[in-house]
Amino acid sequence: MSLLVIGSLAFDDVETPFAKQQNILAGSGTFISISAGFFAENIQLVGVVGEDFGEKNLNLYRERGIDISGVQVVAGGKTFRWSGRYHYDMNSRDTLDTQLNVLADFNPVIPHAYQQAKFVCLGNIDPVLQKSVLGQISRPKLVVCDTMNFWIEGKPKELQETLALVDALIINDSEARQLSKDPNLIKSARIIRAMGPKILIIKKGEHGALLFTDSGIFSAPAYPLETVFDPTGAGDCFAGGFIGYLAKAGEVNDQTLRRAVLYGSTMASFCVEKFGVERLLDLTPLEVGDRFQSFLDLSKIDD
Amino acid sequence: MSLLVIGSLAFDDVETPFAKQQNILAGSGTFISISAGFFAENIQLVGVVGEDFGEKNLNLYRERGIDISGVQVVAGGKTFRWSGRYHYDMNSRDTLDTQLNVLADFNPVIPHAYQQAKFVCLGNIDPVLQKSVLGQISRPKLVVCDTMNFWIEGKPKELQETLALVDALIINDSEARQLSKDPNLIKSARIIRAMGPKILIIKKGEHGALLFTDSGIFSAPAYPLETVFDPTGAGDCFAGGFIGYLAKAGEVNDQTLRRAVLYGSTMASFCVEKFGVERLLDLTPLEVGDRFQSFLDLSKIDD
Repeated sequence: MSLLVIGSLAFDDVETPFAKQQNILAGSGTFISISAGFFAENIQLVGVVGEDFGEKNLNLYRERGIDISGVQVVAGGKTFRWSGRYHYDMNSRDTLDTQLNVLADFNPVIPHAYQQAKFVCLGNIDPVLQKSVLGQISRPKLVVCDTMNFWIEGKPKELQETLALVDALIINDSEARQLSKDPNLIKSARIIRAMGPKILIIKKGEHGALLFTDSGIFSAPAYPLETVFDPTGAGDCFAGGFIGYLAKAGEVNDQTLRRAVLYGSTMASFCVEKFGVERLLDLTPLEVGDRFQSFLDLSKIDD
Repeated sequence: MSLLVIGSLAFDDVETPFAKQQNILAGSGTFISISAGFFAENIQLVGVVGEDFGEKNLNLYRERGIDISGVQVVAGGKTFRWSGRYHYDMNSRDTLDTQLNVLADFNPVIPHAYQQAKFVCLGNIDPVLQKSVLGQISRPKLVVCDTMNFWIEGKPKELQETLALVDALIINDSEARQLSKDPNLIKSARIIRAMGPKILIIKKGEHGALLFTDSGIFSAPAYPLETVFDPTGAGDCFAGGFIGYLAKAGEVNDQTLRRAVLYGSTMASFCVEKFGVERLLDLTPLEVGDRFQSFLDLSKIDD
């Protein structure tokens, strides 16, 4: 089924304790759509870039079957840029520079052809823009929303308005504690689900992820990684694998949601192996299947 | 199959942010043997108490079918006492007082009838005493060892000598990082398994537990608790459920080990619901079975 993705398209400069690279093709819209493309067809991307983004980069989406007729190219504009440095533990990072550029005045316009999308992924951008997207489309089967501490702190009221309209929210454990104002993740989940999203995924990094639905709790293991090369985009790849699998399955129920969490975890585990989308670009469906099986094996108990 | 347990028998004074109680029957030997008793028969306990321990407490073990002919009662001696206060998050605590008393001169003597035990659980005591036990018995089918930061810091050389002799080690995540001197748990596991124990369990509190064997990694979920009443003894109850189930199963392989980790987690999740062994004393096999099923459901993916 058709999948509408909205998110940032960016160039990142990333520095880790082990390597650094500049002008990395990145942004939540990029990671989500490419990750989802391993599962879903008819992916429709909405975003904005500057003239510096270039045809070569735009072709990268087109070649993967991603519809970019919803991506605005601002003449004379510059693409959003982010620059950051990861600490030794790879769990924390400093933002060195943020240049919003064309993202500063971004007003997402959903093309007519996109308005009937059955699955919608609101990548991590201003909750006001996320809400504006929902105002322009027919009621989809599933709306998944991603956000971050920046919006929880900076636009709490606007975020609440968006959360009231979405079916599923994906956040990490520290964001869940911040949003709910409760240190216990089980209580946090109850509080956040009361804000709107009946489906809640809390990502816990090296400790896996928790899925909360009306059917109960699912605990997903983490892939046992000894080294992380670049964590940037892992959360977006999770969201892409999650909603991409659901769009392919066409059904949203406890069993497809559980599998979707494992496919999201699978995509995130590949993302961190190289800079940006590099690993996703050379990834094969066979590798995805093998790693998904590894996730199943990690918590398998024979009957 | 017969299960030999060695550990402390103690009186605890415990203070949490919500309640406090004195003279709680406790100690690793107590928690392990009572927890294991839900699965195994022929449990043989080795430990030491003072004259103040009393017949009433000794009968508590006897009534549960635990053989205490290996428990030394020191005439005129006082039982080991520990006193602690938990912080608001229930994850950290301050030791307010430790009175070793009869434990200071404890020299475990393994009764002849215990020397053929097939399963052995070395509760958290001085690694020198743990090693002395192994020197007095025939080679068992499985030796499980528990330890803590106190011994990792205080007797590193002696602990290494004991670890070289055991089949399985149960520790928590911060202890694993301390023992291996590596922050990554997957690398830590590799380093610790090279010290001796081919079976390693790393407990991660609210994030569940990891089992490392030659067959690979098993990731066990945590029971979704909204409140913890008293965490004291949870680790010992885990060890008791773990080895108790294995002693009952009689076979140590990847599948029984995985189930053993979930039974250990099950027993720990009950332990924290009340002070000391209180919850274990009113616990029924039906409740144990129900909660074990909840653990299975938490990570279940239908084929």
